Amino acid sequence: MKYPNSILKLIDELKRFPGIGEKTAQRLALFVVNKMESEHVESLSEALLMTKSAITFCPICGTFMEESCPICDNPNRNQKTIMVVESISDLIIIENGENYHGLYHVLGGTIDFTKGIEPQDLNIDSLLKRVAKVDEIILALNGAVDGQLTSSYIQELLKEKTVKVTKIAHGIPVGGDLSYADQRTLAIALENRITLKE
Amino acid sequence: MKYPNSILKLIDELKRFPGIGEKTAQRLALFVVNKMESEHVESLSEALLMTKSAITFCPICGTFMEESCPICDNPNRNQKTIMVVESISDLIIIENGENYHGLYHVLGGTIDFTKGIEPQDLNIDSLLKRVAKVDEIILALNGAVDGQLTSSYIQELLKEKTVKVTKIAHGIPVGGDLSYADQRTLAIALENRITLKE
Repeated sequence: MKYPNSILKLIDELKRFPGIGEKTAQRLALFVVNKMESEHVESLSEALLMTKSAITFCPICGTFMEESCPICDNPNRNQKTIMVVESISDLIIIENGENYHGLYHVLGGTIDFTKGIEPQDLNIDSLLKRVAKVDEIILALNGAVDGQLTSSYIQELLKEKTVKVTKIAHGIPVGGDLSYADQRTLAIALENRITLKE
Repeated sequence: MKYPNSILKLIDELKRFPGIGEKTAQRLALFVVNKMESEHVESLSEALLMTKSAITFCPICGTFMEESCPICDNPNRNQKTIMVVESISDLIIIENGENYHGLYHVLGGTIDFTKGIEPQDLNIDSLLKRVAKVDEIILALNGAVDGQLTSSYIQELLKEKTVKVTKIAHGIPVGGDLSYADQRTLAIALENRITLKE
Protein backbone atom coordinates (compact mmCIF):
# COMPACT_ATOMS: atom_id res chain seq x y z
CA MET A 1 0.00 0.00 0.00
CA LYS A 2 1.24 3.47 -0.87
CA TYR A 3 0.03 6.64 0.80
CA PRO A 4 -3.21 7.88 -0.82
CA ASN A 5 -2.57 10.52 -3.49
CA SER A 6 -3.82 13.45 -1.43
CA ILE A 7 -1.31 12.61 1.32
CA LEU A 8 1.55 12.20 -1.17
CA LYS A 9 0.69 15.63 -2.55
CA LEU A 10 0.66 17.18 0.93
CA ILE A 11 4.04 15.57 1.73
CA ASP A 12 5.50 17.08 -1.47
CA GLU A 13 4.14 20.52 -0.61
CA LEU A 14 5.50 20.40 2.96
CA LYS A 15 8.97 19.45 1.65
CA ARG A 16 9.29 22.92 0.11
CA PHE A 17 10.09 24.31 3.57
CA PRO A 18 13.81 24.52 4.40
CA GLY A 19 14.79 21.91 6.97
CA ILE A 20 11.75 19.72 6.27
CA GLY A 21 12.75 16.48 4.55
CA GLU A 22 10.79 13.38 3.54
CA LYS A 23 10.51 11.90 7.06
CA THR A 24 9.41 15.12 8.76
CA ALA A 25 6.95 15.90 5.95
CA GLN A 26 5.43 12.42 6.37
CA ARG A 27 5.16 12.94 10.11
CA LEU A 28 3.44 16.32 9.67
CA ALA A 29 1.09 15.01 6.97
CA LEU A 30 0.09 12.02 9.13
CA PHE A 31 -0.54 14.42 12.01
CA VAL A 32 -2.91 16.41 9.78
CA VAL A 33 -4.77 13.25 8.79
CA ASN A 34 -4.85 11.44 12.13
CA LYS A 35 -4.84 14.04 14.86
CA MET A 36 -5.53 17.58 13.71
CA GLU A 37 -9.07 18.88 14.12
CA SER A 38 -10.73 19.80 10.82
CA GLU A 39 -11.27 23.38 11.99
CA HIS A 40 -7.56 23.74 12.75
CA VAL A 41 -6.61 22.41 9.33
CA GLU A 42 -8.97 25.01 7.84
CA SER A 43 -7.55 27.85 9.92
CA LEU A 44 -3.96 26.87 9.04
CA SER A 45 -4.87 26.68 5.36
CA GLU A 46 -6.52 30.10 5.57
CA ALA A 47 -3.65 31.66 7.56
CA LEU A 48 -1.21 30.62 4.82
CA LEU A 49 -3.26 32.36 2.14
CA MET A 50 -4.02 35.40 4.29
CA THR A 51 -0.40 35.93 5.23
CA LYS A 52 0.76 35.69 1.66
CA SER A 53 -1.89 38.10 0.37
CA ALA A 54 -2.02 40.58 3.29
CA ILE A 55 1.72 41.10 3.63
CA THR A 56 3.54 43.45 1.31
CA PHE A 57 7.00 44.97 1.65
CA CYS A 58 7.67 48.62 2.43
CA PRO A 59 9.07 50.22 -0.76
CA ILE A 60 11.36 52.40 1.38
CA CYS A 61 12.92 50.18 4.05
CA GLY A 62 11.98 46.69 2.82
CA THR A 63 10.32 45.37 5.99
CA PHE A 64 6.93 43.76 5.77
CA MET A 65 3.78 45.75 6.27
CA GLU A 66 0.03 45.25 6.13
CA GLU A 67 -1.53 48.67 5.43
CA SER A 68 1.24 51.04 6.46
CA CYS A 69 4.90 50.46 7.33
CA PRO A 70 5.20 49.94 11.12
CA ILE A 71 8.67 51.55 11.01
CA CYS A 72 8.74 54.30 8.37
CA ASP A 73 5.21 55.54 9.08
CA ASN A 74 5.69 55.70 12.85
CA PRO A 75 6.24 59.41 13.77
CA ASN A 76 7.65 58.44 17.19
CA ARG A 77 10.72 56.87 15.63
CA ASN A 78 13.94 58.81 15.10
CA GLN A 79 13.84 59.64 11.37
CA LYS A 80 17.49 60.68 11.30
CA THR A 81 19.11 57.27 11.78
CA ILE A 82 18.99 54.21 9.53
CA MET A 83 20.15 50.79 10.70
CA VAL A 84 21.18 48.52 7.83
CA VAL A 85 20.26 44.88 8.46
CA GLU A 86 20.56 41.74 6.39
CA SER A 87 17.00 40.47 6.78
CA ILE A 88 13.63 41.13 8.34
CA SER A 89 14.42 38.39 10.88
CA ASP A 90 17.42 40.43 12.05
CA LEU A 91 15.27 43.57 12.16
CA ILE A 92 12.84 41.77 14.48
CA ILE A 93 15.67 40.57 16.72
CA ILE A 94 16.88 44.19 17.09
CA GLU A 95 13.31 45.39 17.71
CA ASN A 96 12.78 42.79 20.43
CA GLY A 97 15.78 44.28 22.26
CA GLU A 98 14.01 47.67 22.46
CA ASN A 99 17.36 49.51 22.41
CA TYR A 100 16.95 51.11 19.01
CA HIS A 101 14.22 53.50 17.88
CA GLY A 102 15.35 54.75 14.47
CA LEU A 103 14.61 53.57 10.93
CA TYR A 104 15.88 50.46 9.15
CA HIS A 105 17.04 49.39 5.74
CA VAL A 106 16.71 45.69 4.90
CA LEU A 107 19.37 44.62 2.39
CA GLY A 108 17.78 41.27 1.62
CA GLY A 109 21.07 39.39 2.07
CA THR A 110 24.81 39.99 2.12
CA ILE A 111 27.39 40.07 -0.64
CA ASP A 112 28.64 36.50 -1.04
CA PHE A 113 30.50 35.71 -4.25
CA THR A 114 30.65 32.00 -3.32
CA LYS A 115 26.85 31.97 -3.60
CA GLY A 116 26.76 34.33 -6.58
CA ILE A 117 25.21 37.17 -4.53
CA GLU A 118 26.60 40.44 -5.88
CA PRO A 119 25.97 44.04 -4.72
CA GLN A 120 23.34 44.62 -7.42
CA ASP A 121 21.27 41.71 -5.99
CA LEU A 122 20.82 43.63 -2.73
CA ASN A 123 18.85 46.78 -1.79
CA ILE A 124 21.95 48.98 -1.81
CA ASP A 125 20.92 51.54 -4.47
CA SER A 126 17.75 52.31 -2.52
CA LEU A 127 19.88 52.86 0.61
CA LEU A 128 22.03 55.45 -1.21
CA LYS A 129 18.86 57.38 -2.11
CA ARG A 130 17.92 57.67 1.58
CA VAL A 131 21.30 58.87 2.82
CA ALA A 132 20.68 62.61 2.23
CA LYS A 133 17.75 62.60 4.68
CA VAL A 134 19.57 61.13 7.66
CA ASP A 135 22.46 61.93 10.02
CA GLU A 136 23.70 58.40 10.72
CA ILE A 137 23.85 55.01 9.05
CA ILE A 138 24.41 52.10 11.47
CA LEU A 139 25.71 48.92 9.84
CA ALA A 140 24.34 45.92 11.79
CA LEU A 141 25.43 43.00 9.65
CA ASN A 142 26.67 39.61 10.84
CA GLY A 143 30.24 39.09 12.10
CA ALA A 144 31.17 36.51 9.44
CA VAL A 145 33.08 37.19 6.23
CA ASP A 146 30.00 37.97 4.10
CA GLY A 147 28.59 40.45 6.64
CA GLN A 148 31.92 42.23 7.11
CA LEU A 149 32.56 42.34 3.36
CA THR A 150 29.13 43.91 2.85
CA SER A 151 29.81 46.43 5.63
CA SER A 152 33.10 47.44 3.98
CA TYR A 153 31.44 47.72 0.59
CA ILE A 154 28.72 50.05 1.88
CA GLN A 155 31.25 52.04 3.92
CA GLU A 156 33.26 52.59 0.71
CA LEU A 157 30.16 53.76 -1.17
CA LEU A 158 29.33 56.27 1.58
CA LYS A 159 32.88 57.69 1.85
CA GLU A 160 32.08 60.90 -0.03
CA LYS A 161 28.60 61.47 1.47
CA THR A 162 27.98 63.83 4.37
CA VAL A 163 26.64 61.20 6.73
CA LYS A 164 28.05 59.53 9.83
CA VAL A 165 28.59 55.80 9.30
CA THR A 166 28.85 53.46 12.31
CA LYS A 167 29.05 49.73 12.78
CA ILE A 168 27.65 47.78 15.74
CA ALA A 169 30.46 46.72 18.10
CA HIS A 170 31.89 43.23 18.22
CA GLY A 171 29.82 42.12 21.11
CA ILE A 172 28.49 39.59 18.64
CA PRO A 173 30.82 36.60 18.58
CA VAL A 174 33.08 36.79 15.50
CA GLY A 175 31.76 34.37 12.89
CA GLY A 176 28.33 34.28 14.56
CA ASP A 177 24.87 35.20 13.31
CA LEU A 178 22.75 37.91 14.96
CA SER A 179 20.09 35.32 15.73
CA TYR A 180 22.41 33.53 18.20
CA ALA A 181 23.19 36.68 20.20
CA ASP A 182 21.30 37.39 23.42
CA GLN A 183 19.61 40.76 23.91
CA ARG A 184 22.23 41.98 26.42
CA THR A 185 25.02 41.31 23.93
CA LEU A 186 23.06 43.10 21.23
CA ALA A 187 22.52 46.09 23.56
CA ILE A 188 26.27 46.32 24.26
CA ALA A 189 27.12 45.94 20.60
CA LEU A 190 24.79 48.83 19.77
CA GLU A 191 26.07 51.03 22.63
CA ASN A 192 29.72 50.52 21.66
CA ARG A 193 29.28 51.01 17.96
CA ILE A 194 32.44 52.24 16.25
CA THR A 195 32.47 55.41 14.17
CA LEU A 196 33.83 54.54 10.76
CA LYS A 197 33.41 58.02 9.31
CA GLU A 198 32.33 61.27 11.02
CA MET B 1 7.78 46.47 15.89
CA LYS B 2 5.83 43.27 16.33
CA TYR B 3 5.09 40.80 13.56
CA PRO B 4 2.01 41.85 11.58
CA ASN B 5 -1.18 40.12 12.80
CA SER B 6 -1.45 37.76 9.84
CA ILE B 7 2.05 36.43 10.53
CA LEU B 8 1.36 36.06 14.26
CA LYS B 9 -1.74 34.05 13.36
CA LEU B 10 0.20 31.81 10.99
CA ILE B 11 2.89 31.22 13.65
CA ASP B 12 0.17 30.17 16.12
CA GLU B 13 -1.36 27.77 13.61
CA LEU B 14 2.01 26.19 12.75
CA LYS B 15 2.74 25.63 16.46
CA ARG B 16 -0.07 23.06 16.59
CA PHE B 17 2.25 20.53 14.91
CA PRO B 18 4.19 18.29 17.30
CA GLY B 19 7.87 19.20 17.37
CA ILE B 20 7.27 22.72 16.00
CA GLY B 21 7.91 25.36 18.65
CA GLU B 22 7.91 29.16 18.55
CA LYS B 23 11.31 29.53 16.81
CA THR B 24 10.63 26.94 14.09
CA ALA B 25 7.12 28.31 13.50
CA GLN B 26 8.61 31.82 13.07
CA ARG B 27 11.18 30.47 10.63
CA LEU B 28 8.52 28.66 8.57
CA ALA B 29 6.17 31.67 8.60
CA LEU B 30 8.96 34.01 7.46
CA PHE B 31 9.81 31.55 4.69
CA VAL B 32 6.17 31.71 3.52
CA VAL B 33 6.27 35.52 3.51
CA ASN B 34 9.75 36.09 2.11
CA LYS B 35 10.61 33.19 -0.13
CA MET B 36 7.71 30.94 -1.05
CA GLU B 37 6.06 31.51 -4.44
CA SER B 38 2.38 32.50 -4.16
CA GLU B 39 1.34 29.50 -6.24
CA HIS B 40 3.15 27.15 -3.84
CA VAL B 41 1.46 28.75 -0.85
CA GLU B 42 -1.86 28.19 -2.61
CA SER B 43 -1.10 24.57 -3.45
CA LEU B 44 0.03 23.85 0.14
CA SER B 45 -3.11 25.50 1.50
CA GLU B 46 -5.25 23.43 -0.87
CA ALA B 47 -3.38 20.17 -0.16
CA LEU B 48 -4.09 20.60 3.56
CA LEU B 49 -7.84 20.96 2.96
CA MET B 50 -7.94 18.23 0.31
CA THR B 51 -6.12 15.73 2.48
CA LYS B 52 -8.36 16.36 5.43
CA SER B 53 -11.56 16.07 3.38
CA ALA B 54 -10.56 13.26 0.97
CA ILE B 55 -9.14 10.90 3.58
CA THR B 56 -11.45 8.74 5.65
CA PHE B 57 -10.62 5.70 7.75
CA CYS B 58 -11.59 2.14 6.83
CA PRO B 59 -14.35 1.07 9.27
CA ILE B 60 -12.93 -2.46 9.28
CA CYS B 61 -9.15 -2.18 9.63
CA GLY B 62 -8.70 1.49 10.54
CA THR B 63 -6.20 2.48 7.83
CA PHE B 64 -6.83 5.53 5.72
CA MET B 65 -8.63 5.32 2.44
CA GLU B 66 -9.89 7.63 -0.29
CA GLU B 67 -12.75 5.79 -2.05
CA SER B 68 -12.11 2.18 -1.11
CA CYS B 69 -9.77 0.59 1.42
CA PRO B 70 -6.46 -0.22 -0.29
CA ILE B 71 -6.02 -3.22 2.04
CA CYS B 72 -9.44 -4.76 2.82
CA ASP B 73 -10.85 -4.22 -0.69
CA ASN B 74 -7.80 -5.69 -2.46
CA PRO B 75 -8.76 -9.25 -3.56
CA ASN B 76 -5.09 -10.15 -4.12
CA ARG B 77 -4.33 -9.95 -0.40
CA ASN B 78 -4.51 -12.95 1.89
CA GLN B 79 -7.86 -12.50 3.66
CA LYS B 80 -7.08 -15.14 6.27
CA THR B 81 -4.36 -13.28 8.20
CA ILE B 82 -4.62 -10.07 10.20
CA MET B 83 -1.55 -8.18 11.40
CA VAL B 84 -2.24 -6.00 14.43
CA VAL B 85 -0.27 -2.74 14.36
CA GLU B 86 -0.20 0.28 16.64
CA SER B 87 -0.60 2.96 13.97
CA ILE B 88 -1.00 3.63 10.27
CA SER B 89 2.66 4.76 10.22
CA ASP B 90 3.68 1.27 11.35
CA LEU B 91 1.38 -0.28 8.73
CA ILE B 92 3.14 1.73 6.03
CA ILE B 93 6.57 0.66 7.32
CA ILE B 94 5.50 -3.01 7.07
CA GLU B 95 4.02 -2.40 3.61
CA ASN B 96 7.24 -0.79 2.39
CA GLY B 97 9.07 -4.01 3.31
CA GLU B 98 6.84 -5.98 0.87
CA ASN B 99 7.15 -9.13 3.02
CA TYR B 100 3.54 -9.26 4.15
CA HIS B 101 0.43 -9.54 2.00
CA GLY B 102 -2.43 -10.15 4.43
CA LEU B 103 -4.85 -7.80 6.17
CA TYR B 104 -4.20 -5.35 9.01
CA HIS B 105 -5.88 -4.06 12.13
CA VAL B 106 -4.79 -0.62 13.36
CA LEU B 107 -5.20 -0.33 17.15
CA GLY B 108 -4.71 3.42 17.26
CA GLY B 109 -2.16 3.19 20.09
CA THR B 110 -1.01 0.83 22.83
CA ILE B 111 -2.23 0.28 26.37
CA ASP B 112 -0.27 2.71 28.55
CA PHE B 113 -1.66 3.35 32.03
CA THR B 114 0.99 6.04 32.64
CA LYS B 115 -0.65 8.05 29.84
CA GLY B 116 -4.18 7.01 30.77
CA ILE B 117 -4.61 4.88 27.63
CA GLU B 118 -6.78 1.90 28.56
CA PRO B 119 -7.92 -1.07 26.44
CA GLN B 120 -11.31 0.54 25.71
CA ASP B 121 -9.55 3.53 24.11
CA LEU B 122 -8.12 1.24 21.40
CA ASN B 123 -9.74 -0.62 18.48
CA ILE B 124 -9.68 -3.96 20.30
CA ASP B 125 -13.42 -4.79 20.28
CA SER B 126 -13.49 -4.42 16.49
CA LEU B 127 -10.53 -6.82 16.26
CA LEU B 128 -12.43 -9.48 18.25
CA LYS B 129 -15.31 -9.23 15.75
CA ARG B 130 -12.96 -10.07 12.85
CA VAL B 131 -11.30 -13.09 14.48
CA ALA B 132 -13.87 -15.66 13.29
CA LYS B 133 -13.09 -14.93 9.63
CA VAL B 134 -9.32 -15.49 9.79
CA ASP B 135 -6.79 -18.24 10.53
CA GLU B 136 -4.02 -16.19 12.08
CA ILE B 137 -3.55 -12.99 14.05
CA ILE B 138 0.01 -11.58 13.95
CA LEU B 139 0.83 -9.14 16.75
CA ALA B 140 3.33 -6.57 15.42
CA LEU B 141 3.57 -4.10 18.28
CA ASN B 142 6.65 -2.29 19.52
CA GLY B 143 9.24 -3.99 21.73
CA ALA B 144 8.85 -1.58 24.66
CA VAL B 145 6.74 -2.16 27.77
CA ASP B 146 3.52 -0.66 26.33
CA GLY B 147 3.71 -2.72 23.13
CA GLN B 148 4.44 -5.96 24.96
CA LEU B 149 1.71 -5.29 27.53
CA THR B 150 -0.78 -4.71 24.71
CA SER B 151 0.37 -7.94 22.99
CA SER B 152 -0.16 -9.91 26.21
CA TYR B 153 -3.57 -8.33 26.74
CA ILE B 154 -4.78 -9.27 23.24
CA GLN B 155 -3.23 -12.74 23.55
CA GLU B 156 -5.24 -13.26 26.73
CA LEU B 157 -8.48 -12.13 25.06
CA LEU B 158 -7.93 -14.59 22.18
CA LYS B 159 -7.09 -17.57 24.41
CA GLU B 160 -10.47 -19.27 23.94
CA LYS B 161 -10.89 -18.44 20.23
CA THR B 162 -10.05 -20.91 17.47
CA VAL B 163 -7.40 -18.76 15.83
CA LYS B 164 -3.62 -18.99 15.67
CA VAL B 165 -1.95 -16.03 17.42
CA THR B 166 1.66 -15.14 16.59
CA LYS B 167 3.97 -12.29 17.50
CA ILE B 168 6.74 -10.88 15.29
CA ALA B 169 10.16 -12.06 16.48
CA HIS B 170 12.52 -9.93 18.49
CA GLY B 171 14.56 -8.88 15.55
CA ILE B 172 13.41 -5.39 16.56
CA PRO B 173 15.77 -4.05 19.22
CA VAL B 174 14.18 -4.43 22.67
CA GLY B 175 12.80 -1.06 23.76
CA GLY B 176 12.85 0.24 20.19
CA ASP B 177 10.10 1.53 17.94
CA LEU B 178 9.19 -0.13 14.63
CA SER B 179 10.05 3.08 12.80
CA TYR B 180 13.75 2.72 13.70
CA ALA B 181 14.04 -0.85 12.34
CA ASP B 182 15.46 -1.40 8.87
CA GLN B 183 13.52 -3.49 6.36
CA ARG B 184 15.87 -6.50 6.68
CA THR B 185 15.31 -6.61 10.44
CA LEU B 186 11.57 -6.34 9.93
CA ALA B 187 11.68 -9.20 7.39
CA ILE B 188 13.54 -11.43 9.87
CA ALA B 189 11.19 -10.46 12.67
CA LEU B 190 8.23 -11.46 10.52
CA GLU B 191 9.82 -14.74 9.34
CA ASN B 192 10.72 -15.82 12.88
CA ARG B 193 7.40 -14.93 14.44
CA ILE B 194 6.65 -17.01 17.54
CA THR B 195 3.43 -19.00 17.85
CA LEU B 196 1.75 -17.97 21.08
CA LYS B 197 -1.31 -20.19 20.62
CA GLU B 198 -2.02 -22.80 17.92
